Amino acid sequence: MAVPPSTHPRRLLPLFLGLFQGALLLFFTLFVTYDEPSAQTQDTNLANQVYSTFPFFQDIQVMLVVGLGLLLTFLPRYGFSALTHNFLLLNFSVQWALVLQGLLHHFHHGQIHLDLHKLLISEFAAVTVLISVGAILGRASPCQLLVMATCEIPAYLASEWVIVTALGVLDVGGTITIHIFSCYFGLGVSKALFRATQQPLHPKETPTPRSDLMSLVGTLILWVFWPSFVAVLCQPGDAQHRAILNTLLAVSASAITTLVASSLLERDGKLSPGHLQNGSLAGGVAIGVVADMAMPPVAALALGSLSAVVCVLGFRFLTPLLGRKLTLHDQCGIHNLHGLPGILGAAASVVAVLVAPKDTSGSHPSQLSPAAGNASGVVEGQWGGRGAGGQALCQAAGLAAAVGASLLAGLLTGAALRLPCLARPPERLCFDDSLYFKIQDQAESPGPDSGAEEGALALKEQI
Amino acid sequence: MAVPPSTHPRRLLPLFLGLFQGALLLFFTLFVTYDEPSAQTQDTNLANQVYSTFPFFQDIQVMLVVGLGLLLTFLPRYGFSALTHNFLLLNFSVQWALVLQGLLHHFHHGQIHLDLHKLLISEFAAVTVLISVGAILGRASPCQLLVMATCEIPAYLASEWVIVTALGVLDVGGTITIHIFSCYFGLGVSKALFRATQQPLHPKETPTPRSDLMSLVGTLILWVFWPSFVAVLCQPGDAQHRAILNTLLAVSASAITTLVASSLLERDGKLSPGHLQNGSLAGGVAIGVVADMAMPPVAALALGSLSAVVCVLGFRFLTPLLGRKLTLHDQCGIHNLHGLPGILGAAASVVAVLVAPKDTSGSHPSQLSPAAGNASGVVEGQWGGRGAGGQALCQAAGLAAAVGASLLAGLLTGAALRLPCLARPPERLCFDDSLYFKIQDQAESPGPDSGAEEGALALKEQI
Amino acid sequence: MAVPPSTHPRRLLPLFLGLFQGALLLFFTLFVTYDEPSAQTQDTNLANQVYSTFPFFQDIQVMLVVGLGLLLTFLPRYGFSALTHNFLLLNFSVQWALVLQGLLHHFHHGQIHLDLHKLLISEFAAVTVLISVGAILGRASPCQLLVMATCEIPAYLASEWVIVTALGVLDVGGTITIHIFSCYFGLGVSKALFRATQQPLHPKETPTPRSDLMSLVGTLILWVFWPSFVAVLCQPGDAQHRAILNTLLAVSASAITTLVASSLLERDGKLSPGHLQNGSLAGGVAIGVVADMAMPPVAALALGSLSAVVCVLGFRFLTPLLGRKLTLHDQCGIHNLHGLPGILGAAASVVAVLVAPKDTSGSHPSQLSPAAGNASGVVEGQWGGRGAGGQALCQAAGLAAAVGASLLAGLLTGAALRLPCLARPPERLCFDDSLYFKIQDQAESPGPDSGAEEGALALKEQI
Repeated sequence: MAVPPSTHPRRLLPLFLGLFQGALLLFFTLFVTYDEPSAQTQDTNLANQVYSTFPFFQDIQVMLVVGLGLLLTFLPRYGFSALTHNFLLLNFSVQWALVLQGLLHHFHHGQIHLDLHKLLISEFAAVTVLISVGAILGRASPCQLLVMATCEIPAYLASEWVIVTALGVLDVGGTITIHIFSCYFGLGVSKALFRATQQPLHPKETPTPRSDLMSLVGTLILWVFWPSFVAVLCQPGDAQHRAILNTLLAVSASAITTLVASSLLERDGKLSPGHLQNGSLAGGVAIGVVADMAMPPVAALALGSLSAVVCVLGFRFLTPLLGRKLTLHDQCGIHNLHGLPGILGAAASVVAVLVAPKDTSGSHPSQLSPAAGNASGVVEGQWGGRGAGGQALCQAAGLAAAVGASLLAGLLTGAALRLPCLARPPERLCFDDSLYFKIQDQAESPGPDSGAEEGALALKEQI
Repeated sequence: MAVPPSTHPRRLLPLFLGLFQGALLLFFTLFVTYDEPSAQTQDTNLANQVYSTFPFFQDIQVMLVVGLGLLLTFLPRYGFSALTHNFLLLNFSVQWALVLQGLLHHFHHGQIHLDLHKLLISEFAAVTVLISVGAILGRASPCQLLVMATCEIPAYLASEWVIVTALGVLDVGGTITIHIFSCYFGLGVSKALFRATQQPLHPKETPTPRSDLMSLVGTLILWVFWPSFVAVLCQPGDAQHRAILNTLLAVSASAITTLVASSLLERDGKLSPGHLQNGSLAGGVAIGVVADMAMPPVAALALGSLSAVVCVLGFRFLTPLLGRKLTLHDQCGIHNLHGLPGILGAAASVVAVLVAPKDTSGSHPSQLSPAAGNASGVVEGQWGGRGAGGQALCQAAGLAAAVGASLLAGLLTGAALRLPCLARPPERLCFDDSLYFKIQDQAESPGPDSGAEEGALALKEQI
Repeated sequence: MAVPPSTHPRRLLPLFLGLFQGALLLFFTLFVTYDEPSAQTQDTNLANQVYSTFPFFQDIQVMLVVGLGLLLTFLPRYGFSALTHNFLLLNFSVQWALVLQGLLHHFHHGQIHLDLHKLLISEFAAVTVLISVGAILGRASPCQLLVMATCEIPAYLASEWVIVTALGVLDVGGTITIHIFSCYFGLGVSKALFRATQQPLHPKETPTPRSDLMSLVGTLILWVFWPSFVAVLCQPGDAQHRAILNTLLAVSASAITTLVASSLLERDGKLSPGHLQNGSLAGGVAIGVVADMAMPPVAALALGSLSAVVCVLGFRFLTPLLGRKLTLHDQCGIHNLHGLPGILGAAASVVAVLVAPKDTSGSHPSQLSPAAGNASGVVEGQWGGRGAGGQALCQAAGLAAAVGASLLAGLLTGAALRLPCLARPPERLCFDDSLYFKIQDQAESPGPDSGAEEGALALKEQI
């Protein structure tokens, strides 16, 4: 299988990344430093901070690098590319988010003081890119993905500032700011990139039993560590404890409901691997926005179940419909895993705010105020005195802002990705590792079973 | 490969699970709540509790969802089913155990206060189901597995109450209450389900190099996190530290002794993958009951080595013998990994109690008493004043109770699983993912090596 | 494929391991104990110690057992052996290091008090063996590997004592003491074992897409947890926080720079899987020696980028050159991942010491002194008053000592491995699991794709 000698775009990737690394070094030289070594009492505080945040941080790294990477290996000949592109984009986006956040928010006295918390915030920004990629996975070149990341990170930071800081939306687990934003950004990119062209089913697109198994392992890793993702930015203590429990309940309900929904939807009662790989996580997406709010445990269970139902229904009916009617291509079904459950979660947060007990108002203002940006609660004092109705409106406005901003930014980005120099692979070379990696062409590769296959091949040639 | 149109049992699974989720929602609505948001001082305590328990909890989740799931993928065409059934049963059993424990133990003032510790206890209950399944893996339908879980959780809770609370058996790592109970429950189910029918070797049952590799990865994940499983419920401080070290020593000795035993047992000195996958973990099973007792480190090493030896001997001699003489089918060899090392551990606990130093009695009663149910020790005050001999008797009685209760409950459950509506798959469809999942039939699937294989197939058809 | 009836060497492995386990039991019986159960205040301290060290310890266990094991599975038919030998060597080396360290350092009052920290130190010693094995992976028998471990652990302990204790070299992440030592030890073994024989490319040596994917997963696991490895022995608080951040920055820069370098080096711009699998980790190797020093964040980024460049250049040019000119065989390219980045890191530590700010001298001596053996810093008081120049000289001397001692010890060990009784496999049986494991011969094994292949095989036989 000959690969066209398109050497020019191949050179663009190292050029782009090399320049970026150079600029990053310059930026860090000029502006970034560590905190001065602190006095002994602060040292103990810092040690405690490391012990309280670092395990969560590591869990999230495992989710993004290993879990999400493996989830994307369901394309049987594109596994190496999926893992590598995911890994590259994570690193690029974190660095790019560090630079932008440094410039935007943390510019005090000409120096940015780097710490674990700032890295974590950049990691959250990078998650949006990793999710959005799912819409065009396998049909885009690495250069296109990098340009997409370059556009998405600033759009996310602006949108996050509007939603959380300006509007005061409560969203501790990033349901609105991360999941909804990245979903509609990805769909916008896909729409503008592929326009009205129906993407035909590619022969290399169908999962094999083996690639489905690897992908399921990725799902399970994400599933296990999801509570860490939702709870890492919570106020330590009661709120964080509740966020962990709510997330555990939600993903547990999702797992079982996915099985029910998937087997009811198919005529022969067989489960679809894709439903399982995604539906089990839907509850985690939806719960993020309400995870630390004062609501009964049953609400987390119900939200998890409902999310799984809409996710499976989305895969069964909505994705094909969007493909036919809007020629909207969504390779991994991110709309079903991040869009629909995200909207459900946002709606739940409106309800949760409205029905929150009023009598606890002002019960511990001193305790909650320091983390007002991160931790949410039902205490009226924390809503800036705007009352339950006002806060509910805010949540709805945040949802609308996220959908609108991301769609717009995604469509613009997708149009930019059509630049010919970004070298979108031709259809027949899509979904194939051998386009980007020095990997034995799998059709002719021996693999562990080489004996038999080589025999068969030799035979074929002889006959 | 045509699948019979047995639509009725296919509908039973979603019906059963759907009803259960509905009942769960109702139960949570009526009875389950979170603790009231606590005052500031308690908040710090809760935060510390989260930081001390949550990492252990996550480790255990990784073990059960990823490690144990992968261990079961040694059946080459049944990997997706093994992972999914394991995942489904974990979620179902945790929820079911939460309900039952709520009803049984925690019914104060009409409300159950959910917290991480209660979830952890339910997770331990669910482990018994995941182990027992090993006896009938691949030959039972999902409905049968769910019915088994439904019966096993209450049996476990009753047996655990008798052994730990009524008899006062010391068993911090669940050797007797979890491993022995689940092993003999599973064997009872297998005996009653398959009766006197010899299960022939199924052609799809033989591991391939690839499935053996995945299974070994599962073993290694379990091996790494085993100390967390044993130590999570220990008294923090000295006891927990010792439990971690003892477990590390035991599994390390098991790993090396398994190699020795396995290569000595085979005529050509080659190692059996199955021995490695199981024997390396045997020490972790045995050490649980004595992990936090005052014993010298050499005892942990010796116990780990001995467990590995009995485990490998069990695989080599006992399992075939039980199959021939008692027509007892044990697909994963749970008797060798959980039964024999468990009995060894229980015997070791008798010895450890008898030879424990007497002069430390009452050294720190105030410190140990609050966790009397979980932490064990050698202080006589903690044995309820019954003396070393009395406590040793208790340990032996606990072992007998666990074996007896689990065998009885397992036989009854296995008889119930013979109900025709539970749809045990016919022999020729066993060990095959395509019975329950929309997965390409693997015999005809392309897979990454499709080129060669498709060629061979095409060739075959032409000739 | 008939395996020669070399029963004698097959018996050597269990004999050797069995004797070692026996000796270990004896040693533990005589000399090893736990600390006495401590008073209540100490208990809280111990609890805190468990919570602060244990998560790091578990991360490192995952790296060594799962991550490094999977990284070595790039040999498609040798995956099971690679995982198992890695696992066996880890356990053997930790136990052997425990014994030696007990005898050498911790012999107080005739009893060794085992704790988590001593286990961690032994684990670090074991890492050297796991790295060195990479030079001869696939071409050595398990017996040879065990003899190698037996020789390497005491050599490492002696070299580490000279470098850290006698010379006072600062090396918190083990760049010099672990990575450089193990690399040149491994190369010495390889040289003395294979002498002037050019190792031809073995047909089973070429990775398949599947084995490359598994190996990449191993890389990603190592990549995620690398900060834990570097920071575990740091002074808690500021130094540990900085070590974590520096490592995160270094490996992140490595990941991106590897892509740039690899795609620039190949004519067609395709990335080499081997470069990715190794280059992404190079920054972690180099940063170890300077991770907790007072240097700006940009230095970590630059060091990470440079390490990736030298690693990729090493794979592309140096390894083939060494193979041709010195007939030096380096199966996994450990010189590129551990040797070159290690030297770069050591050089960086010289610079870091020389340019360190002088005005902070003596700022918090009381705080740093207790951990003088582990934590490093730029405070002159900690350099034993030898000044920046003296300390820089020390760092260089440490590098020279590590290279010299390891090469010498490696050459001697390699010569010992030529003993015929250690049964080096003949060339045609190298890189094959079926030599040591009861695994279906993969050339004839069905595997999940059995249908097609068996058909092809049957066909082949008929024709």
